[in-house]
Amino acid sequence: MSPNGRFVVFEGPEGAGKSTQVKRLAAWLQAADLKVLTTREPGGSALADRVRDILLDPTLTIDAEAEFLLYSAARAQHVKDTIQPALATHDAVLCDRFAASSTAYQGYGRGLNLDWVASVNAHTTQGLEPHLTILLDLPPETGLARVASRGRVDRLEQADIAFHRRVREAFVNLARDNQGWVTIDATQSEDGVHQAIQEAYARAFGAP
Amino acid sequence: MSPNGRFVVFEGPEGAGKSTQVKRLAAWLQAADLKVLTTREPGGSALADRVRDILLDPTLTIDAEAEFLLYSAARAQHVKDTIQPALATHDAVLCDRFAASSTAYQGYGRGLNLDWVASVNAHTTQGLEPHLTILLDLPPETGLARVASRGRVDRLEQADIAFHRRVREAFVNLARDNQGWVTIDATQSEDGVHQAIQEAYARAFGAP
Repeated sequence: MSPNGRFVVFEGPEGAGKSTQVKRLAAWLQAADLKVLTTREPGGSALADRVRDILLDPTLTIDAEAEFLLYSAARAQHVKDTIQPALATHDAVLCDRFAASSTAYQGYGRGLNLDWVASVNAHTTQGLEPHLTILLDLPPETGLARVASRGRVDRLEQADIAFHRRVREAFVNLARDNQGWVTIDATQSEDGVHQAIQEAYARAFGAP
Repeated sequence: MSPNGRFVVFEGPEGAGKSTQVKRLAAWLQAADLKVLTTREPGGSALADRVRDILLDPTLTIDAEAEFLLYSAARAQHVKDTIQPALATHDAVLCDRFAASSTAYQGYGRGLNLDWVASVNAHTTQGLEPHLTILLDLPPETGLARVASRGRVDRLEQADIAFHRRVREAFVNLARDNQGWVTIDATQSEDGVHQAIQEAYARAFGAP
């Protein structure tokens, strides 16, 4: 077991296949006898699950600022209760969304001030940065069509296509401008995406 | 009806009698034919009530940072949905706690960075400042004894006495260092406190 686990974050739009690919990467690493924790945002603690229920309730009016602060509250608790402890005891922690999702959705998507978002993110993450961020990229129309076919439509998914285009552009720019990001074409088959993720993981950390 | 209502905030520890005194001030103003809205934090919107349920649930682990962000999310929605609209249509909006409670409880009480708290408060209030803040001051022991006698013990009230002393000191300092604060001795009788609040209101705005 490593003294410090690898923190791997999956980012990307709705319908990109993040939760499926988190599970497949975890299974691949576990097959190599690594100890892996998978988690997601908003989630990973009793508080975060309660916040998640609020955020995904389409009957509530939630302004961009309040939305961002709710995600941030959940993230602060998630980092402290779940991610930081797991990085000390696991080889890898795989997380479905992290602070970059706030930058993309609430910053670029909803138009909150980006310095403000960065300042709050720095507090809620306690400065923790992913060792590897895997961006599953695909056009918003494709992602939304996949989500619609599952019959799941929540608050984020009801927002308009221009919003989703801004979010995609934000993710693409973040991947271009920051260390430790890998962009993977998520229009490929599920197996193709998983293969690309294995390769990205091995390039970043060596073969598991 | 004034074009811009007066925003009057009640601050102070648990057991200071804020909710009672908000009601009595409202009744006094309404008897003078003023249009008054009373509200409280965290509350005043469907979202804020959901957040309140989380904050006051003693079974949840909520770190200081997450606690502050939850209060802040509720406050952002409360200002936008309730307080700002009511200030345009009412003579007075009376609010039980506002941003100064975060400064006192999460900043001084729980030790969060005060610049950070001020920066978040400025965002969530959209720069809105109370025209009058009434601090109902009393020793923490007295307030806690009153609360205990009501049989209500929630998360804040379980915290230790040193915490409550820091909160009281913070409120006293805020009242001393800022414009628009009036400190009232809340160990007086309920009638005595109400009389002092009437006088403070009339000094600030003229007789209603």
